[in-house]
Amino acid sequence: MSENTLYKEYVQLSHKAADLNNASAVLGWDQEVYMPPKGAAFRGQQLATLASMAHEIATGPRMGRLLKDLTHDESLTDLQRANVHRSLDDYEKNSKLPSDFVESLSRQTSECFNAWLDARKLNDFKVFAPSLEKMVALKREQANLYGYEVHPYDALLDEYEKGMTVATLDKVFEGIKRELPPILDKIRSAAQVNDAFFYRHYPKGAQWDFSMDVLRKMGYDLDAGRQDISEHPFTTSFAPTDVRVTTRVSEDNFASLLWSSIHEGGHALYEQGLPEAEYGLPLGAAASLGIHESQSRLWENCVGRGQQFWNQFFPILKGYFPEQLADVTATDFFKACNKVEPSFIRTEADEVTYHFHVLIRYELEKAILDGSLDVNGLPSAWNELYNKYLGITPPDYVRGVIQDVHWSHGMFGYFPTYTLGSFYGVQFFAKAKQEIAGLEQQIEHGEFASLLAWLREKVHRHGRRYTSEELCKQITGEGLNFSYFKNYIQDKYAKVYNITF
Amino acid sequence: MSENTLYKEYVQLSHKAADLNNASAVLGWDQEVYMPPKGAAFRGQQLATLASMAHEIATGPRMGRLLKDLTHDESLTDLQRANVHRSLDDYEKNSKLPSDFVESLSRQTSECFNAWLDARKLNDFKVFAPSLEKMVALKREQANLYGYEVHPYDALLDEYEKGMTVATLDKVFEGIKRELPPILDKIRSAAQVNDAFFYRHYPKGAQWDFSMDVLRKMGYDLDAGRQDISEHPFTTSFAPTDVRVTTRVSEDNFASLLWSSIHEGGHALYEQGLPEAEYGLPLGAAASLGIHESQSRLWENCVGRGQQFWNQFFPILKGYFPEQLADVTATDFFKACNKVEPSFIRTEADEVTYHFHVLIRYELEKAILDGSLDVNGLPSAWNELYNKYLGITPPDYVRGVIQDVHWSHGMFGYFPTYTLGSFYGVQFFAKAKQEIAGLEQQIEHGEFASLLAWLREKVHRHGRRYTSEELCKQITGEGLNFSYFKNYIQDKYAKVYNITF
Repeated sequence: MSENTLYKEYVQLSHKAADLNNASAVLGWDQEVYMPPKGAAFRGQQLATLASMAHEIATGPRMGRLLKDLTHDESLTDLQRANVHRSLDDYEKNSKLPSDFVESLSRQTSECFNAWLDARKLNDFKVFAPSLEKMVALKREQANLYGYEVHPYDALLDEYEKGMTVATLDKVFEGIKRELPPILDKIRSAAQVNDAFFYRHYPKGAQWDFSMDVLRKMGYDLDAGRQDISEHPFTTSFAPTDVRVTTRVSEDNFASLLWSSIHEGGHALYEQGLPEAEYGLPLGAAASLGIHESQSRLWENCVGRGQQFWNQFFPILKGYFPEQLADVTATDFFKACNKVEPSFIRTEADEVTYHFHVLIRYELEKAILDGSLDVNGLPSAWNELYNKYLGITPPDYVRGVIQDVHWSHGMFGYFPTYTLGSFYGVQFFAKAKQEIAGLEQQIEHGEFASLLAWLREKVHRHGRRYTSEELCKQITGEGLNFSYFKNYIQDKYAKVYNITF
Repeated sequence: MSENTLYKEYVQLSHKAADLNNASAVLGWDQEVYMPPKGAAFRGQQLATLASMAHEIATGPRMGRLLKDLTHDESLTDLQRANVHRSLDDYEKNSKLPSDFVESLSRQTSECFNAWLDARKLNDFKVFAPSLEKMVALKREQANLYGYEVHPYDALLDEYEKGMTVATLDKVFEGIKRELPPILDKIRSAAQVNDAFFYRHYPKGAQWDFSMDVLRKMGYDLDAGRQDISEHPFTTSFAPTDVRVTTRVSEDNFASLLWSSIHEGGHALYEQGLPEAEYGLPLGAAASLGIHESQSRLWENCVGRGQQFWNQFFPILKGYFPEQLADVTATDFFKACNKVEPSFIRTEADEVTYHFHVLIRYELEKAILDGSLDVNGLPSAWNELYNKYLGITPPDYVRGVIQDVHWSHGMFGYFPTYTLGSFYGVQFFAKAKQEIAGLEQQIEHGEFASLLAWLREKVHRHGRRYTSEELCKQITGEGLNFSYFKNYIQDKYAKVYNITF
């Protein structure tokens, strides 16, 4: 810690805002996991108070003055300078939004979320449309307030993935559009994989115990975290020393709990690996949503859906469910984990079709933002694109255009980070296999310590010091490169479907 | 709600402070119930930030100005005037403590609590004494800052029980010293009650289910609350719509869980009954600690340790534990629940000896505050008093002078509220029996709705509108009167021990 008193004050002020935000996170966790139903109204008010007080500190004049003075302070260390630089960036971005705009957005988010809930209940897009239209108008205004050079969507993408633009993403999705359809066709014409045994009866308690075994072996520190049940699985952090995951359990669908646990476990390992000393500062926070997703996808897909992983864990799993899995082998199980099939719901999609779901949302968001598509045109545009890319037509709105919560929260520009995360994850894992001798054998023995140490060293410890692209170059020697994902997919599905590419 | 804009601003400011305090309560609950061990350090920091921000609002100049202006505002309703009056009281009391004193006290509390934990581990009072001495010096200073007319202890008592003084309490404890010893002697010389069956093996799950049955029947709204497990049972509220209790379960001591659940349930019914419209204001808060305790003791002792209660619940309990209770009747069980026996630990004491535990602490606190006893003299004074009043000598410090956490938290003046609460509870229950026709039969049928409605009407809905004594007079037509407790005790123990008084 520097003796610099201005820097100290900046740290104290940042801690205060972080303490409020982390308190909000505890209230949010409780709301999803344990809060009794009638607690909702006052909880909403309490969360709003904490959020507005944290916002006041982070965007207040004292913070602005400190950051501007510190920017010219020659006595700071490199790490301190990096914190100040990122914080000033955030401050300037936040300061572009007048407080009455922030309030309107917050009010519209509540209204729009409730309209979305109603629309889902009634399976009726029209119930959602008027609120969504107002939300879109606000998001266009927000893009204008932030400012942009080429496309209004750029201004929003930057919120979730610093520096990301339509120009870059168009190239990423071009790769998907060009390369994935022939791969998907080849898989679809091969002999299909049997995953019927996922849908046998798996009692909750044993599923839970197995998921805890997996989390423990991954290296998730249960003295600094815990797993609970919630309707929608998520990871939340109150400090690197208290990072929690949630999962869901379905007794008739084994896949439901397992992938949630491993996916959220990957997110949680990242949060537990952030430097404690940088608590509340940019270097104590995750680099970006894309990098966060790279960690969850790496563990879920590269590790958890691999043959080596199941060579280790299938015998353990069979110990829990000897009857249900009597006629199943580790290889059968590995293959079932990787079954490819076009489907309506993004969150249940396999590793190949998943990116078409994201592509569709990306194209729609771009069009909505630049005005070439209006909100009322969304349902038919949605269905056309599902037909075009996946050859299926959603049977209703709930399995179509109103399946995701994101738009109701005003989160335009978020979806692409799912695809970026998957691709970064694959690219990082390819590098890890080069740099960690015998990594696949280690996984086969249930040993994840070297992999975790590598991720800690390469990704976690840096916090927000680097952008996603800087980090990617630093780790792999190049920026995001779609060919890693293509190779990974071809390699995996050649084994799963006994085909060659 | 008044259209008065000053009053509105007072309400908004109070809500802001309440939201912060209730967020702290959520973090505190989580800390005791679910937080992983490594989360403690940052959690402590987060709680400190929330507390200091709430304190800043509640004692800030804007709040002071508003309260002073509103005091002279003729347009306020009676309820609004009551809120302003109580808030001004709090404000003026808080304003007497300079912020550096508040900080010293907060720091000394952490130090003293840790010293107490260490002292317990080592069973050594000397490890606690130096910290406790500093704490006592601060409490004397606090009494001086608050100011008092007769005894420095008066200034501290007032924090927990508005208007309570040594002069009043001396009279209460005189009653105990005069009346209870002969009752205790008579009980002790009667044939003893058998409670050995409490210590058979009771599996946790069934104990839990039974306690949930009891809480539900009491009228605890589980859509606005929940029960969890913690080391030390407590009740906490985040709003009247989210009030939680905790309990503990011991498989070898049935009494452990049951009394905690009913006791905390009584506290929780009070909090759930506070008026939602007065959230964050004095009229939305409990009247005093004594009144709070009156609610928990009324349910625990007057209801839960009564013959009628067990006529209803014993058959249900036997359904859960048919083997353990095969040779036990409802009356055996009722008697076991009321076994009297001098013991070392206050929290495990019966309804008669309990008040000697409180009396001992009261006498010691008075002497410590007025300087007639110093901290190093506490252990021998403690043991002498246990010998004098209960005829037993604590075998070690842990079962003696360092058994309670309160002094380490600087809570001098808190203990008497336990006795006051018990006595208020008994006096209120006597009135309820008069005013609710057939109350005992209702209890015998597991019907508590009329009792709860009576408590809501008489106590809960008023919040802090009245002091304990005002409330007591309003409900029972007279102030606290020890003879109710004496009658209650004689009546109960005549049945339990087959004796006459």
